[in-house]
Amino acid sequence: MLLRIDHVGIACRSLDAAIERYQSVFGLTVVAREVNEEQGVREAMLATSEGSSYVQLLEPLRPDTPVGKFIERRGEGMHHVGYAVADVTAALAELGGAGLRLIDSQPRHGSMGASIAFLHPGDLGGVLTELVQPRDPAQT
Amino acid sequence: MLLRIDHVGIACRSLDAAIERYQSVFGLTVVAREVNEEQGVREAMLATSEGSSYVQLLEPLRPDTPVGKFIERRGEGMHHVGYAVADVTAALAELGGAGLRLIDSQPRHGSMGASIAFLHPGDLGGVLTELVQPRDPAQT
Repeated sequence: MLLRIDHVGIACRSLDAAIERYQSVFGLTVVAREVNEEQGVREAMLATSEGSSYVQLLEPLRPDTPVGKFIERRGEGMHHVGYAVADVTAALAELGGAGLRLIDSQPRHGSMGASIAFLHPGDLGGVLTELVQPRDPAQT
Repeated sequence: MLLRIDHVGIACRSLDAAIERYQSVFGLTVVAREVNEEQGVREAMLATSEGSSYVQLLEPLRPDTPVGKFIERRGEGMHHVGYAVADVTAALAELGGAGLRLIDSQPRHGSMGASIAFLHPGDLGGVLTELVQPRDPAQT
């Protein structure tokens, strides 16, 4: 079901400062920037050189968002991991049918036009886990 | 410098329970199990289906190890992210020369025969970051 690690989501206080850091230290390239009001984040995707996995930097739009609360509780750092899947709707049906707790029972809008869904960390050893169906089928 | 996300390292209290969970939920396959005394962990690598990125499950050998202290402080969950690089020695020289704080100034032994080194999370937004030069050059 999990094709590869698509991205790691990293919570940061300042998106601009985090982008500058990852660009200057590792030479990563920003391939997308967007605001996701639904998730309460301003974010950027930085591509690794093979192009199939990303560093996702997430700045909370407000303190009362999931990422804002995460930073208040734990500080900046790794927030979640996203795995590429071929069909997020089918994956949710299979996982939900097996009793796994889903944060999103239906896919929603993710970075770069992907369809995404989050799984509950309580069933996955404390790891907030995201399934990602990239917009471009060639990328799956 | 960063070719792709090689793995996410997940701290768990019981390696066997965590393997069972990731196998049963996602159908992941264990491709390696080992004890790394130097790092104080019992670990397993589970491959995603494309085979180029892994879930690394880490159980501390003792409470007074880095992963043991991590679990005591924060509970189970994501511990670090590892990126594949072509030449870890060259990467360390470049990053150290640029002033980044290195936990390992020289490569050491990682999973599946890789040469690895950790970078200090204090310079990387709270993210413990590992560089991984896989043993098999074809994998870089």
